[in-house]
Amino acid sequence: MNFQPQCPAPGAADDRIQMAHGGGGKMTQRLIDQVFLPAFSNSALDALHDGALLELTGNRLAFTTDSFVVNPLIFPGGNIGDLAVYGTANDLAMCGARPRYLSAGFILEEGLPMETLRLIVASMAEAAHRAGVTIVTGDTKVVDKGKGDGVFINTAGIGTVESPSPIGPHAVQPGDSIIVSGQLGAHGLAILSVREGLEFESPIVSDAAPLWPAIEALLAAGIDINCLRDLTRGGLASALNEIATARALPIRIEEDAIPVAEVVRGACGILGLDPLYVANEGVFVLFVPNSQTTHALEVMRQIPVSSAAVRIGAVEDGTRGSVILHTQIGGNRVVDMLSGEQLPRIC
Amino acid sequence: MNFQPQCPAPGAADDRIQMAHGGGGKMTQRLIDQVFLPAFSNSALDALHDGALLELTGNRLAFTTDSFVVNPLIFPGGNIGDLAVYGTANDLAMCGARPRYLSAGFILEEGLPMETLRLIVASMAEAAHRAGVTIVTGDTKVVDKGKGDGVFINTAGIGTVESPSPIGPHAVQPGDSIIVSGQLGAHGLAILSVREGLEFESPIVSDAAPLWPAIEALLAAGIDINCLRDLTRGGLASALNEIATARALPIRIEEDAIPVAEVVRGACGILGLDPLYVANEGVFVLFVPNSQTTHALEVMRQIPVSSAAVRIGAVEDGTRGSVILHTQIGGNRVVDMLSGEQLPRIC
Repeated sequence: MNFQPQCPAPGAADDRIQMAHGGGGKMTQRLIDQVFLPAFSNSALDALHDGALLELTGNRLAFTTDSFVVNPLIFPGGNIGDLAVYGTANDLAMCGARPRYLSAGFILEEGLPMETLRLIVASMAEAAHRAGVTIVTGDTKVVDKGKGDGVFINTAGIGTVESPSPIGPHAVQPGDSIIVSGQLGAHGLAILSVREGLEFESPIVSDAAPLWPAIEALLAAGIDINCLRDLTRGGLASALNEIATARALPIRIEEDAIPVAEVVRGACGILGLDPLYVANEGVFVLFVPNSQTTHALEVMRQIPVSSAAVRIGAVEDGTRGSVILHTQIGGNRVVDMLSGEQLPRIC
Repeated sequence: MNFQPQCPAPGAADDRIQMAHGGGGKMTQRLIDQVFLPAFSNSALDALHDGALLELTGNRLAFTTDSFVVNPLIFPGGNIGDLAVYGTANDLAMCGARPRYLSAGFILEEGLPMETLRLIVASMAEAAHRAGVTIVTGDTKVVDKGKGDGVFINTAGIGTVESPSPIGPHAVQPGDSIIVSGQLGAHGLAILSVREGLEFESPIVSDAAPLWPAIEALLAAGIDINCLRDLTRGGLASALNEIATARALPIRIEEDAIPVAEVVRGACGILGLDPLYVANEGVFVLFVPNSQTTHALEVMRQIPVSSAAVRIGAVEDGTRGSVILHTQIGGNRVVDMLSGEQLPRIC
């Protein structure tokens, strides 16, 4: 580093993102050297080539991508950085694939405090460690002030498929048990509480967490996983509707059985939200043959991320995809797909 | 589709991007069904799982990512869509890898005309076909008006490495010939001419194009490719500086030999730009053993994208990484790395 007096003081030049940090020159190099590499260092990334070279010979691969635009960037229980790691790692897990490698593409807004970027990047490194993935390639772009919103992050992920049979709506059968891995709604309400300046007696903290340990345990126990879906944007209701529609089978769930924390239920009541539609970042739904329900629950309850797993319903016989909620007062109502936008920029 | 009068006319609801297009509900589904799937349809994508399942058994893989924030979205010779495909496919090619699979992550600004998105997506489909890649997984987010800039696109790519030996700065040797594949500066000037409202006698058109055909031909001819770099942000000067620094060897190039179209040279003169620093999206630099120079040039000149390939210089012996330009008037000057931001949002 050059400390000659004719240069701007390094602190002044580097404490906020400038357009030149995206120019591919010295400033970009410094951003990579000082912020990204120290956080993500590994042999594939350190090679600093245009791409990472990976050895995955003899494996079936899963490949996925997700962009993250959550607002605010930092919220109770996490920030956009760990969300970007868990979100993509979890999409791989939902394919029955062990998350292995991530790419990270940053779109930074001019003027972003470098301190915020450092915090986010540190969270990504920690989250990658927790999720067992390696960030092997990346990219940074900078857009003019007012043309972005702090930080957007895209992650793409490669995983190795460990499920012996294909997982997906096609494999769902009438009679299958439907299990959710934990309590619904915490991520969405954590975001909303910051955005709306709400305070609750006990703070609501995002559930963002890696899901692979639960899937790995289910596979190791020999459970036949027919379908998996993480309950992000659109929540449980949207995931079940997608599966019911794709398989053209009715799904029936019991309101009594659906796990929602008291504080989340209360907050949803105040805000006029239905927890069935609220986003989660560490909860999934699992479809297994009815005969394996007890075994699957036993396995899941031993893994921290799915320790609150419960059966919430079943797939019925029929020819039309729909989701029916059997309510606490004994009625039935159709749970439709979200038709508007309930919670924008939740992930 | 519902034509009941109480619903908004489908044209009215769907001719611009709304926040609900990013909500994970019906509007998101419609966007996927009506815009993305028809353009990118293939079996891996059509499965509509959280990730794409790929069979690449027994291959060495390259993995890369790039976000695209080019402004304007549409420019002479291309748009952000084909740029996003070629950019990532070319990064794979620069690893000696055949581009195979792409992911596509869209960050859309509320209010974006659907027509613009359709045009961009159609270009991506055509570019993917031209580049021999399949778009197998994707994601869409929508941000509030004023928090984005029309469309940002991230693509990540997986390729299968076909180069028998590792390509990179480490393989560069003193005496290596340095070849550029075509004329410099067209992409940068095409963008700038729209942005600044400049008109030239003959319009300057972006050079964006897939580079793999040239690399494939070089590999097929048995050329020892020591190093490859596409000349995007920061141009030839930045690429050569990175390589010289990484390998700690001096590079010498001849100003006379560097190919720049007359119209680009003229425009650079008017704008005070040095074509050595201007971004390209269809030009690369190649390092080969001196003894293979003629053969490499013969091979490249038979491939359209590299038909104007020329040798521009050589790697010299030494211990310090630097790039020296031997000028037309017989002097020498150091070509340094870009230290500010010459052309923001060029890709």
